[in-house]
Amino acid sequence: MARIAPVNARGTRDFLPRDLVRRNRVFALLRATFERYGFEPLETPSIENTSVLEGKYGEEGDRLLFRILKRGRELESGVRALDALSLGERSTAAMSRALSDEALRYDLTVPFARVIAAHQNDIVLPFRRYQMQPVWRADKPQRGRYREFYQCDVDCVGSRSMTVDAEMVAIHQEVFAALGFSGVVTRINHRGLLAALMATCDVPEEQYVATLTTMDKLDKIGLDGVRTELSKASLSDAAVDRLTQAMGLTGTPETIIESLRPIVGSNPMGAQALDELAQVFGYLADMGVPAERLRFDLSVVRGLGYYTGTIYETVLTNSTLGSLGGGGRYDQLIGMFLGRDLPCVGISFGLERIFDALDEQELARDEVTTTTQALVTLFAAETLASSFALATELRAAGIRTEVYTEPKDLRPQLTFASKKGIPLALILGPDELANDTVALRDLRAGAQRIVPRSETVAAVQSLLTGES
Amino acid sequence: MARIAPVNARGTRDFLPRDLVRRNRVFALLRATFERYGFEPLETPSIENTSVLEGKYGEEGDRLLFRILKRGRELESGVRALDALSLGERSTAAMSRALSDEALRYDLTVPFARVIAAHQNDIVLPFRRYQMQPVWRADKPQRGRYREFYQCDVDCVGSRSMTVDAEMVAIHQEVFAALGFSGVVTRINHRGLLAALMATCDVPEEQYVATLTTMDKLDKIGLDGVRTELSKASLSDAAVDRLTQAMGLTGTPETIIESLRPIVGSNPMGAQALDELAQVFGYLADMGVPAERLRFDLSVVRGLGYYTGTIYETVLTNSTLGSLGGGGRYDQLIGMFLGRDLPCVGISFGLERIFDALDEQELARDEVTTTTQALVTLFAAETLASSFALATELRAAGIRTEVYTEPKDLRPQLTFASKKGIPLALILGPDELANDTVALRDLRAGAQRIVPRSETVAAVQSLLTGES
Repeated sequence: MARIAPVNARGTRDFLPRDLVRRNRVFALLRATFERYGFEPLETPSIENTSVLEGKYGEEGDRLLFRILKRGRELESGVRALDALSLGERSTAAMSRALSDEALRYDLTVPFARVIAAHQNDIVLPFRRYQMQPVWRADKPQRGRYREFYQCDVDCVGSRSMTVDAEMVAIHQEVFAALGFSGVVTRINHRGLLAALMATCDVPEEQYVATLTTMDKLDKIGLDGVRTELSKASLSDAAVDRLTQAMGLTGTPETIIESLRPIVGSNPMGAQALDELAQVFGYLADMGVPAERLRFDLSVVRGLGYYTGTIYETVLTNSTLGSLGGGGRYDQLIGMFLGRDLPCVGISFGLERIFDALDEQELARDEVTTTTQALVTLFAAETLASSFALATELRAAGIRTEVYTEPKDLRPQLTFASKKGIPLALILGPDELANDTVALRDLRAGAQRIVPRSETVAAVQSLLTGES
Repeated sequence: MARIAPVNARGTRDFLPRDLVRRNRVFALLRATFERYGFEPLETPSIENTSVLEGKYGEEGDRLLFRILKRGRELESGVRALDALSLGERSTAAMSRALSDEALRYDLTVPFARVIAAHQNDIVLPFRRYQMQPVWRADKPQRGRYREFYQCDVDCVGSRSMTVDAEMVAIHQEVFAALGFSGVVTRINHRGLLAALMATCDVPEEQYVATLTTMDKLDKIGLDGVRTELSKASLSDAAVDRLTQAMGLTGTPETIIESLRPIVGSNPMGAQALDELAQVFGYLADMGVPAERLRFDLSVVRGLGYYTGTIYETVLTNSTLGSLGGGGRYDQLIGMFLGRDLPCVGISFGLERIFDALDEQELARDEVTTTTQALVTLFAAETLASSFALATELRAAGIRTEVYTEPKDLRPQLTFASKKGIPLALILGPDELANDTVALRDLRAGAQRIVPRSETVAAVQSLLTGES
């Protein structure tokens, strides 16, 4: 028989049941938490018009898009358009444009912005939504980096209130605590504060990016390292002094905010940023988030993307894995589709990183490898109907029950259950049928006892209790 | 501001929260049912190598694949390969092959077969799995037909036992009953029986497809119509008589099976098919599926694809919507990837058709438009911390609670809750704070009462009880 290689596409994964047991448990916890905070689910198509995606993620992003090849006549005319290009005009971008006008979703934020504009008459503002769907990026695959992976975003559109910014941080904290992590700290900063700091320290505009990139390294190279690196750039000594003085501030967020007022308070953007940060920390206290889980951290930069206000990054202080997620306020992105700005604030959860961290911290590592809780044996014809009836009864009680697929000896049926990790086997042979009993075997403990047929469901429930 | 058109890709849909409330409820019911039967979840990547997908779905399928455009250097050499083709060699297939080597999943069965072969050492057989994921087909979009849509498959690999075939039908029946449908009938047939019938009626092999296609029309054109159409084909009168005699058989499945024995019993494939059908109907009775929901129906053909044994199609008898799903036994598909045959049997659920049918039958049409159950108001600074504390308490009790995004007057906050369909509002103003109470408004009933702060959670729970 000619055999086709059963190979999955590069950078993608098959998820077998044992992988999905934990994965789906974590996903369910996230969904339940978001919904408890009044966030509603939203789903967008995997495919978007390239006009929606292109130019939103920088040159690198455009390059990493999974583009859909045109089909039929459109493909034919695309190829003709390609033929008409001179060699010099045949850039990858030009070729892609001729051959494709749709691509796979690259993140969840841009489609969210498109949805808000497309359904503006159906959406009641302020609108809290969460979204957990795969995205695709043609990155070089490597350990922990895939070409198809889930993103998880939580956003609120339509409010400038800092209560929402605080809520984002509270949700981050609640989810990571519920997952069992300790040492989770959210580092909080503000893009307006960074901009004001650049301006009041007389950093030339063309040096903003380099300066912020250096500040971002505080964790890795320390304050002295930052000072050295800033000095090497063409910043004035006064600028370096002021910047490192600001970055060196310690104490409670309130103290740091007050210490920053003399430095950036004269700048209107800086003053507003400090006010907003003070509000956020205040609301977080009102919401009951412990102060030791929060840090005002001037070295948080969050790339150089669309953020315009508060920014956050949540890290495990007892790990080198880095950020488990982050977010911030971005008041201008939706405007690209809507034609007018709408305030937005959101967080994302780095799901693959979170699974890595759960592994590292040995959390959520139970031994469950299957969703199935009980196997009902199947023997010769006389007991068969009773086996089906028992399974029906167990299922009606909510117990996830598999009936062995065909009449067989007991041993292979028990071996099957053990190999799969099904915890319980219910044996219903001719003897049990005659005595109106069931042999109930706990495959985890290796123990077996005979229970009256009428008490079987209760016995199974009590054996399963306390385990999931 | 230059505005980008917020248009979704052709044939795709955005799902807003009010759409997802029902959709996710139906999906959850399906998942729970499958898991109660011991089926485990499986997920495969959206992207597959084209070598895995091509040639599995016929010419039409190959044409409808969403192919991924190559990138970077691979795209450059693809375009060079395209340039090297003469005009005559530039078929759409050849152009696609030059420019693409990956495509989006077209169904769930072929990826499932690939997974079984790829992970054969990790999968314990017999293996029951379900899969609910989107698939993509570049069909012409029309009402009820989308280019991106969910499929839902339930399969068991590794057993030839007819108990599994019966289980598939039982799951179909259980799901449709749980969704509230009445008049659900599963029509059952067997590919081996059809083949034996063709052989024993001396239908020439080149007439198989046309003959089966005509038989498939029984529902629409009646037995006389089938007879007329068969007569017009180049079948012998004797063949037409025998075929229509077989198709005209009525009575219980057992009676029909016995009446068919003289017609096809001499053919070994026919004899086996009748034995298997007898077993399936017997097991279905053992499983407690009511006989009136089952029909032995010789006109069920299920396309002409990979099925090799029993086949089924579940229909609503009180609707013109047609099949809600179907399936059958296919013992050779996995062999394409594995190099040896493995027995398989499965069913699928036509999710989009099911949603149409739920609409038509006015089922699952509750008024819930949001997952959120309660809105907590937000007023001036003095009550703000209490509002957050109340929300925390409600959430800890599992109540999905949104806090209004910013301090505002009462009226816009209540308008917001009404517009979204949030059933309850909890009003905590200065008066309530002073009296240690909360005003609890039921926005569905338009009723409001004051409850002691300490009894708020219980009062909310009792108002919400019995509604979801």
